[in-house]
Amino acid sequence: MNTNTTMLGYSQLYKKELIENIVPFWTEHSIDKEFGGYYTCLDREGKVFDTDKFAWLQGRQVWTYAMLNNRVEQNEDWVNIAKHGANFLLKNGRDNEGNFYFSFNRAGQPLVQPYNIFSDCFAAMGLGALYKADPVDEYGEVAYNTFQNILKRRNNPKGKYSKIYPGTRDLKNFALPMILCNLSLELEHLLDKQLIDDLAAEVIHEVMETFYDAGSGLILENVHADGSFSDSFEGRVLNPGHAIEAMWFIMDLGVRLNNKALIEKAITIALRTLKFGWDDEHAGIIYFKDIKGHPVQQLEWDQKLWWVHIEALVCMAKAYQLTGNQDCADWFIKLHEYTWPHFRDNQYGEWFGYLNRRGEVLLPLKGGKWKGCFHIPRGLYQVWKTLEVDKLAFV
Amino acid sequence: MNTNTTMLGYSQLYKKELIENIVPFWTEHSIDKEFGGYYTCLDREGKVFDTDKFAWLQGRQVWTYAMLNNRVEQNEDWVNIAKHGANFLLKNGRDNEGNFYFSFNRAGQPLVQPYNIFSDCFAAMGLGALYKADPVDEYGEVAYNTFQNILKRRNNPKGKYSKIYPGTRDLKNFALPMILCNLSLELEHLLDKQLIDDLAAEVIHEVMETFYDAGSGLILENVHADGSFSDSFEGRVLNPGHAIEAMWFIMDLGVRLNNKALIEKAITIALRTLKFGWDDEHAGIIYFKDIKGHPVQQLEWDQKLWWVHIEALVCMAKAYQLTGNQDCADWFIKLHEYTWPHFRDNQYGEWFGYLNRRGEVLLPLKGGKWKGCFHIPRGLYQVWKTLEVDKLAFV
Repeated sequence: MNTNTTMLGYSQLYKKELIENIVPFWTEHSIDKEFGGYYTCLDREGKVFDTDKFAWLQGRQVWTYAMLNNRVEQNEDWVNIAKHGANFLLKNGRDNEGNFYFSFNRAGQPLVQPYNIFSDCFAAMGLGALYKADPVDEYGEVAYNTFQNILKRRNNPKGKYSKIYPGTRDLKNFALPMILCNLSLELEHLLDKQLIDDLAAEVIHEVMETFYDAGSGLILENVHADGSFSDSFEGRVLNPGHAIEAMWFIMDLGVRLNNKALIEKAITIALRTLKFGWDDEHAGIIYFKDIKGHPVQQLEWDQKLWWVHIEALVCMAKAYQLTGNQDCADWFIKLHEYTWPHFRDNQYGEWFGYLNRRGEVLLPLKGGKWKGCFHIPRGLYQVWKTLEVDKLAFV
Repeated sequence: MNTNTTMLGYSQLYKKELIENIVPFWTEHSIDKEFGGYYTCLDREGKVFDTDKFAWLQGRQVWTYAMLNNRVEQNEDWVNIAKHGANFLLKNGRDNEGNFYFSFNRAGQPLVQPYNIFSDCFAAMGLGALYKADPVDEYGEVAYNTFQNILKRRNNPKGKYSKIYPGTRDLKNFALPMILCNLSLELEHLLDKQLIDDLAAEVIHEVMETFYDAGSGLILENVHADGSFSDSFEGRVLNPGHAIEAMWFIMDLGVRLNNKALIEKAITIALRTLKFGWDDEHAGIIYFKDIKGHPVQQLEWDQKLWWVHIEALVCMAKAYQLTGNQDCADWFIKLHEYTWPHFRDNQYGEWFGYLNRRGEVLLPLKGGKWKGCFHIPRGLYQVWKTLEVDKLAFV
């Protein structure tokens, strides 16, 4: 059996997992029929153990169900589930300036202020996708205005909630340019072509040059405002999963721009990051590492997280499909063989989110404050569709 | 050998560890002779791996060296080391309103704003102890003014840096009343007796009634403003080490007030908390647990931390010395037999701070952003002095 045939088998497995395991789990357990929006704090069996709602996860689940309708098959139930979350966000989500709060109680009253610009990113992403499924003006308008608000806030995303004393060590963080790589493509139908083109050029520069550390060939999480290395806890820390996820966003932009060199560079960085982040002792990808080998501040540094592993699978699937690079196929298989037996819950469905270094379940939850209906379904969809293509793009 | 003789042996061991291992380690490795203050980011061997300075740890190390001089033996070197950190804090520590910044770069320029009132608590504690060793007006004045500032800020300690949306779920946190139990006694020489008496009554009420959960008999970390239970992540989480540490602060207040019932209640809570927090599978005290058994938000929940274990040793030593309760002696020995072989570094001196659930070293550092020259030396001193007394207080 050649590699292409093997990969086609994975495609079918990932499709089945998405449609028969993951989507039914969230459809059954996450809908709050009384107060609107989604429960995301679900225990191993899917039972709600906490009713707080988090803007990131509301927006992301809107996106997931709208995306399923838009890209898998038209399905009114999926659209209605997406609208269920969108309406909660539209009704409760924003302060007077249009910034999205971070979290809410069950009834939708705000609990945590809009200190976190990623709430806005995922709200815009969800509403933008839903507008494709059901072109209600408000979905498109709020997605558009929120995106503009993100661009306006992006040089000072935490605003008055920042605890940093200005001027001593002004760092910028990798997460926002990384998300904008993906968000600009997700909202392409709502934005001017010129804005997308300019933004794409800018975020590609940020991700692939500003945050790229030429010495190590790795992507840094935080750099000085001028792009230089900061020899501090924040400057030294690497988050391999984050960088690997960003590399498939970059590959998507590379495809759109038909820029083969950009794709090749992204794959080189992704392979290097995988090697750097792989745990040779217990397998799996380490959560945080210091580039100089010093102790990190994050006590969870050695844990194995669901999103890191599924995003790495997407990255290697795309890398293989675009180039036929056998290293990428090998890494895909190695990641698959770690990820499925460790994260997938064969008994109660869906996947665990948090494993300890040895790959044992650290928290039995299926969803919480950070894990919702997003990385697993998006990743399964991406792998399915990527490996379904029976010829390689650039080979 | 009776229990008293056994305990006297521990006293000598803890004294030796303090004087021959811990104090020389910090004296040798932590002094920044060029820019003032202390390095606290020390690797396993004691080498500086990061030069940032943290107000908590600066204030705490000032306290430790001043305390050694005040309570162990007069020693000019120790006073000079305390003054070295105090002068750094006095020169660089405060904003225009007298609030202490959270952290600084090596040169003393502020990095993180004064969002954290515990910076002020430990600065006041350190300067207050140093004023006893060397009655320079400025030490006493700044300690006094900072304490008044803490009392002024205590109903809204994060001030403008709070991310909580007011009114939806107003919680108060256990840490500040707990620290005030200890700080009010540490600053007794600077404060009016009436203030101390009133404050002691108030914080004892807060700790032993407001945060005490009658149903479980355990201490909660966060409760509603009216003292009621909040069925939320914050409301459900318990930090056993925190509650156990607080119980020896309460015992100290009980001794001062000659309140035997208060001491007995503190011991009952401490024993119950130890039982609740003990890891029956791998031994040691768990860092965080949900009171309803739900998953917690803290990914580090199952780790074993240095301060938790040394504070529990202090608590059980005091509990035994005050009452002769054999359960407390048994727990002391059980804790000792876990703590010393796992945390103490026989090769390079000092103690590790962070172990994983199995008791393996998670981070090889001897000091960092949160671990400095404080819990281990304070705890060793407290156990030494507590168990040195050859008769029991209330027996």
